[in-house]
Amino acid sequence: MNKGNKKNVTFNDIASYTGFSKTTISRYFNNPDSLTPKNQEIIRRALDKLNYHENKVARILARGKTEFVGIIVPNLYLHYFSEMLNQILSTYNEFGFKYLVFVGDGDPEHEKKYLEELMAYQIEGLIVMSHTLPSSELASLPIPVVSIEREDDFISSVNCDNYAGARMAVSLLHSHQCDVYIHVNTPTPETIPAYNRILGFRDYCRENDLRHEIIFLDGDVSFTAISPAVEKLLDELENRYPGQKKGLFFSDDTRAHAFLNRLVRKYNTLPDSYRLVGFDNSPISRDSIYPISTVDQQIPLIAREAVTMLVSQIEEAKKGTARSRETIRHETVPAVLYQRDTTELYGSGNSCASGLPS
Amino acid sequence: MNKGNKKNVTFNDIASYTGFSKTTISRYFNNPDSLTPKNQEIIRRALDKLNYHENKVARILARGKTEFVGIIVPNLYLHYFSEMLNQILSTYNEFGFKYLVFVGDGDPEHEKKYLEELMAYQIEGLIVMSHTLPSSELASLPIPVVSIEREDDFISSVNCDNYAGARMAVSLLHSHQCDVYIHVNTPTPETIPAYNRILGFRDYCRENDLRHEIIFLDGDVSFTAISPAVEKLLDELENRYPGQKKGLFFSDDTRAHAFLNRLVRKYNTLPDSYRLVGFDNSPISRDSIYPISTVDQQIPLIAREAVTMLVSQIEEAKKGTARSRETIRHETVPAVLYQRDTTELYGSGNSCASGLPS
Repeated sequence: MNKGNKKNVTFNDIASYTGFSKTTISRYFNNPDSLTPKNQEIIRRALDKLNYHENKVARILARGKTEFVGIIVPNLYLHYFSEMLNQILSTYNEFGFKYLVFVGDGDPEHEKKYLEELMAYQIEGLIVMSHTLPSSELASLPIPVVSIEREDDFISSVNCDNYAGARMAVSLLHSHQCDVYIHVNTPTPETIPAYNRILGFRDYCRENDLRHEIIFLDGDVSFTAISPAVEKLLDELENRYPGQKKGLFFSDDTRAHAFLNRLVRKYNTLPDSYRLVGFDNSPISRDSIYPISTVDQQIPLIAREAVTMLVSQIEEAKKGTARSRETIRHETVPAVLYQRDTTELYGSGNSCASGLPS
Repeated sequence: MNKGNKKNVTFNDIASYTGFSKTTISRYFNNPDSLTPKNQEIIRRALDKLNYHENKVARILARGKTEFVGIIVPNLYLHYFSEMLNQILSTYNEFGFKYLVFVGDGDPEHEKKYLEELMAYQIEGLIVMSHTLPSSELASLPIPVVSIEREDDFISSVNCDNYAGARMAVSLLHSHQCDVYIHVNTPTPETIPAYNRILGFRDYCRENDLRHEIIFLDGDVSFTAISPAVEKLLDELENRYPGQKKGLFFSDDTRAHAFLNRLVRKYNTLPDSYRLVGFDNSPISRDSIYPISTVDQQIPLIAREAVTMLVSQIEEAKKGTARSRETIRHETVPAVLYQRDTTELYGSGNSCASGLPS
């Protein structure tokens, strides 16, 4: 099994080098606190000296602890997912988990096959961001599962406070006294957390008696789908609400950005008849020709919460606590509003050619 | 070790169910072709019936084949890296490797610690995209290593044809008969493949006797570093080459995009005195207010080549072929030029308010 040119150091080697018994060496690895600190130190030094390389695979069999966590992410095309993955992987220095990462393609058979593989590798827990398998199915896995922003009826989850985020967005538009408020989204099942963006928008508008409308675009995130869709949207809005001040809340920055570009190409500037707010605080919202106001989901916080929740569930599982409906937890991370040019440029008196705000 | 409620099915169970000996069952797993197809089928059906779940950790010890591959990526912030990771992970269906992914932070101690972990988990190969450790050090690992776009003196690699890509970019600018040609890059060590973008630009300009200049910006990719840097760059170019047609070749789309936005904010349109070409064909080059001409690195091809190269090196390692300087291979994937608005809008007679090209 050793593919290299280094000879494996065995427990026998360590035992004869230190003068301890093999049992003592084994205890060092499996229950170090059963040895005195002094003896631990002697063995630690011997390992250095002998250039001992731990064989974790062998230890997994002995101790049942792989430190593997599986991650299923629907894609890495959207910044939201690549940044969430980045933040989860970055917890390595703190928690020590090694992550086995799988990018789903929406095919439940592929995802089931991969889950089977992960189980065969004795992963200790799973973080799921894809929508492919129902939570009832994921809940039947013999390991703790935590989901992020997907249907989570039967599993624990960490989600953004989508409802409050949507209310912040429309409330910002409201402060600009628009004539009509429009929420642009894609068809969203009621079971997924992001559906609360629709509810938050609708409730705020109803409570404040605002004229409002919800428009659903094609859910395809590809440029070739988004570009014609926002072009059509702009034409429709211009026809339906001529001369009126329109407050638009987009459910994602990608579409908000595509709409903004279309708008600026048409008017050669940011026209006063529009106010835009996106969602996600993705880099494009900040790097666009006019920085876009948006709602930040606090991805680093969500990632850290998800891993922390998984760790505590893994600990519970070790104690033999039976998993039950009661142990399922749903946590919500607050959303944060960012005010940028697409709601602020007019009021602040900035001209088109002024410096980009930092 | 079994944390779930499912009883593990043993070789004994399979043997008594099928009537075969335990040795035969073992041969099914370790050398299936030593059994007749009919007997293989009988055992396969028994496994289904018994709901057998393979314990890969146990098999690793028996066969020394983990199917683990380690990946070290410097960040997932840049689309280039998240898309490369996406493409590598997507080879799962074809090659079956499970990927242990690590995002580096530039700290060699962290990266060494992670490498040690990966080695302890018996990874079969490693794909490295970070620049943190020298290839001489990576070459001393007892497993095959393939790098992508980094210093690769002592390890195999797959890189983009940066030299040809740069020549294509400046040649496109040349076809617009600019007065001066400017390459915008960041400080780049001569040892990394992307340095060839500088050489390609310089050689083309010298061969064609073109007035040219190379400008280095801060290497920081954060918005707060790039935004003021491109603002200063625009001011300098306006002062240095007033009224002249400037052909700019950027070494990355992120900076090309930031510069384009600054330009359009200043002129409220795409001024005729500039032609821009970026590098990477990242989504922002296509989704920007004026789509940016760029050089595509063919990320899917590079990812596939890297995995294929790793597979063949893993096979060689299995055959016991000693790794030597001779087995190090460097492959180059062709670059592809994309012509978009920032070089084409003028000639094609499109107006600013026209439709976005598909």
